[in-house]
Amino acid sequence: MSNATVAVVGGGLVGTLNAIYFAQRGWNVNLYEARPDMRLPENKAKERGKSINLALSERGLSALRATKLGLDKLILEASVPMYARMVHVGDKQMSQAYSVHGEYINSVDRARLNDLLLNIAEKFENISIYFEHQLVMIDFDKNILSLKTGSTEHQSSIVKHYADLIVGADGAYSRTRGQMMRRMRMNYEQEYIDTGYCELSMLPKLNENGESEFALDPNHLHIWPRHTFMLIALPNPDKTFTCTLFMPFDMFNEITTKEKLLEFFSTHFPDAIPLIGQERLIDEYFKNPRGSLITIKSSPHHLNGQAVIIGDAAHAMVPFYGQGMNCGFQDIEVLHQVLDHHGITPVLTKKMKNQLEKALTDYSNTRVKDAHAICDLAMYNHYEMRSAVTSLRYLARKGIEGWIHLWAPRWVIPLYTMVSFTTIPYSKAIERWHKQNFWLNVVLGTVSMVTLTGLTGVILFNKNNRKEQNYRDIIKTVLDSVWKNFN
Amino acid sequence: MSNATVAVVGGGLVGTLNAIYFAQRGWNVNLYEARPDMRLPENKAKERGKSINLALSERGLSALRATKLGLDKLILEASVPMYARMVHVGDKQMSQAYSVHGEYINSVDRARLNDLLLNIAEKFENISIYFEHQLVMIDFDKNILSLKTGSTEHQSSIVKHYADLIVGADGAYSRTRGQMMRRMRMNYEQEYIDTGYCELSMLPKLNENGESEFALDPNHLHIWPRHTFMLIALPNPDKTFTCTLFMPFDMFNEITTKEKLLEFFSTHFPDAIPLIGQERLIDEYFKNPRGSLITIKSSPHHLNGQAVIIGDAAHAMVPFYGQGMNCGFQDIEVLHQVLDHHGITPVLTKKMKNQLEKALTDYSNTRVKDAHAICDLAMYNHYEMRSAVTSLRYLARKGIEGWIHLWAPRWVIPLYTMVSFTTIPYSKAIERWHKQNFWLNVVLGTVSMVTLTGLTGVILFNKNNRKEQNYRDIIKTVLDSVWKNFN
Repeated sequence: MSNATVAVVGGGLVGTLNAIYFAQRGWNVNLYEARPDMRLPENKAKERGKSINLALSERGLSALRATKLGLDKLILEASVPMYARMVHVGDKQMSQAYSVHGEYINSVDRARLNDLLLNIAEKFENISIYFEHQLVMIDFDKNILSLKTGSTEHQSSIVKHYADLIVGADGAYSRTRGQMMRRMRMNYEQEYIDTGYCELSMLPKLNENGESEFALDPNHLHIWPRHTFMLIALPNPDKTFTCTLFMPFDMFNEITTKEKLLEFFSTHFPDAIPLIGQERLIDEYFKNPRGSLITIKSSPHHLNGQAVIIGDAAHAMVPFYGQGMNCGFQDIEVLHQVLDHHGITPVLTKKMKNQLEKALTDYSNTRVKDAHAICDLAMYNHYEMRSAVTSLRYLARKGIEGWIHLWAPRWVIPLYTMVSFTTIPYSKAIERWHKQNFWLNVVLGTVSMVTLTGLTGVILFNKNNRKEQNYRDIIKTVLDSVWKNFN
Repeated sequence: MSNATVAVVGGGLVGTLNAIYFAQRGWNVNLYEARPDMRLPENKAKERGKSINLALSERGLSALRATKLGLDKLILEASVPMYARMVHVGDKQMSQAYSVHGEYINSVDRARLNDLLLNIAEKFENISIYFEHQLVMIDFDKNILSLKTGSTEHQSSIVKHYADLIVGADGAYSRTRGQMMRRMRMNYEQEYIDTGYCELSMLPKLNENGESEFALDPNHLHIWPRHTFMLIALPNPDKTFTCTLFMPFDMFNEITTKEKLLEFFSTHFPDAIPLIGQERLIDEYFKNPRGSLITIKSSPHHLNGQAVIIGDAAHAMVPFYGQGMNCGFQDIEVLHQVLDHHGITPVLTKKMKNQLEKALTDYSNTRVKDAHAICDLAMYNHYEMRSAVTSLRYLARKGIEGWIHLWAPRWVIPLYTMVSFTTIPYSKAIERWHKQNFWLNVVLGTVSMVTLTGLTGVILFNKNNRKEQNYRDIIKTVLDSVWKNFN
């Protein structure tokens, strides 16, 4: 019996890494990508200016590390560490560290990371990469994929490929998912937010010695929070910054002339104008497309033992927690842990096929709730980034949380730390966060109450020493009875 | 300038009635239906045993009435009125009226209703009906629909038709909606419930004179509520009943043999076995398909001034409130009220096109929340039908509500009455229901408290007369102070 074949639909980050995982399991892998090979110079230009920079953190790194191919190190070499948020308010900049232990996230370029993964995948004898193969249809009776080949409508033709297992890693608008939904009762939800985005870029500046250097502190994720909208900037290894303006579509639609754009930036982001440059700002704002932001939840993620979706195909999220890719990579690690746990080998006997179905069921049972959790958290962080980061209450609380974490790291772990610097399942992280919040509130509440009571007592004591006695008596009686209750 | 063309996708109940409405507005109507003409005898057989009976109530009737073609009367002639639920528990039957004023819902046959509407639509000169025309794609740049014609893969070809406005009435799995979603930011949600269904049928019985008559009381919707599953039966004009067994898929999957089926029915629906007949039960249970039940919500329901979805295409609901068709028909009435309000004529000048876009925006703004509301209510009624109808608390409360409604019909209107016997927008009905519940709870709470206090008083009075005095004193003091508060 020959080894089983897995069809991986989508040669993006998640699809390619998943192909490598299956190749290491000994499966024959066919990796299908609708676009041409983006590593070729003639295709490079098509890709630029389309997507948000990525922040690689522990979940992503863990999945790269698990391949034991040194992928994590290779990728970290081409990334810029970001230790903190830099919040720009007025002409002040405030650095807010991501971790009290100095942990950091990494700004990486999507295209560069994708190229690197494809280069590694190509070296596996049991991986075949098919560019310009776009999934059209899946016949789940025979497990046959119909794929449209060729880049233009004119030259295209349909090829049919068999696969024992189909993995859909074809993004938020996944055709694999669409085909699965025709065969099964899949719960599905998509929700757009009113906020759109537009990418801008910031070139390096020249220093006194005529050398180019970053226009802003490179080891920060820069944020200009303005409540309903915000500007962010992430560093690139070439000393540029990729900026993203997040703003309600209504506002984009109102800013229709150069004058309005400059007025808007002068009012809200005056320090960003010289950094981006007036000409460049105008050019890019009007030339670059407006992106939209969607949350997608689906359940379950699998169809029998035949197909499974991972990454954005299974769960798209808004980009505000920097977890889209990290979650997609973790999907792969979790999926293969589940396959290991069920002892899945590439020799698909009938028994093994049953086992595979059980494994995929297990995968959905564990992963769906984590996917839902991070989708919700990403939406919550949209609020936090735009607004909360400038509120005193938020900062005070974050400070206390961080301080407790520093001294009792097992007792309280800040949510951001759990999400970005551990691999704790997302749903568990939320659960723990709620519990921590409860106890933090109890402690903070008690501290506040005691302080308040003490202060009131002191004030009244002073007051009554001069005027009347009975207030003092009342407090004394109350405190006495409290004291008795405790003894 | 010639009159505008509307493409109505889907020749089911909602699509056909909508075609009639647009024809009456003076538009040229192209009505596209993927299936062949079901009125032809050779196609009749294909349709049977597929769908649940329909319960036509006020919202549907109102939309039929508004055409002034006497459609409501025509349809009522071919339907059976149902005044009450008949709840089967043990060997008892309990009649629960739908309304204290004698209002009723009407059991109609989907196919018969569809045929009737198509017959009427056909008489309009400005309606062209295209059977076996399946929507494949919509080019929204040019407003051109691509439709696959012909019944088999082999003979099919693609035709392209222009339309000024496209109305999608192509059901829960709407292709129109799918095409719109590729062009716009539509929020969308689909959720399956674990319950599936299977249709069974109950033939007439022969009475003493050898005449055939209904096997059960015909003016009732019969329910066998069993908490996690239930059987229902709706009367047909030909004296048969259409039964539907609603049950979790797991249970369907467990009942795999004749023996298990008969055991199951003997345990839970013993009175239904002789009515359906053992042979027939076995035959139909194993032959008929298992249906699944889905809730679909979408928002908005329109794309610019170009397209709008109505009926199940916009909002599919579980069938437990009997509102699917009624809501779809009301969509049409509301849509055309909005078009009237905006003065939309069939002469689509540029100004009129702008006006049409505003009208469709208005339609989404009003109708989306009502669609969401009835989807939620239908889900709630699933619980009510399976379980609550047998609970004493439910019946007591329903009794009180009905009694107040009888004496003060403007003050309290039971939810079922608002949904089934009025055209109050669904969302308003829910709002009103919540308010009513609040006041009902206040009244019931007060009554209970007063009763309880009185009883306690009497008991203690008797007790203390024999033993101690101080309890009596306490109550007396309390009642005195309450009395003083009221005076």
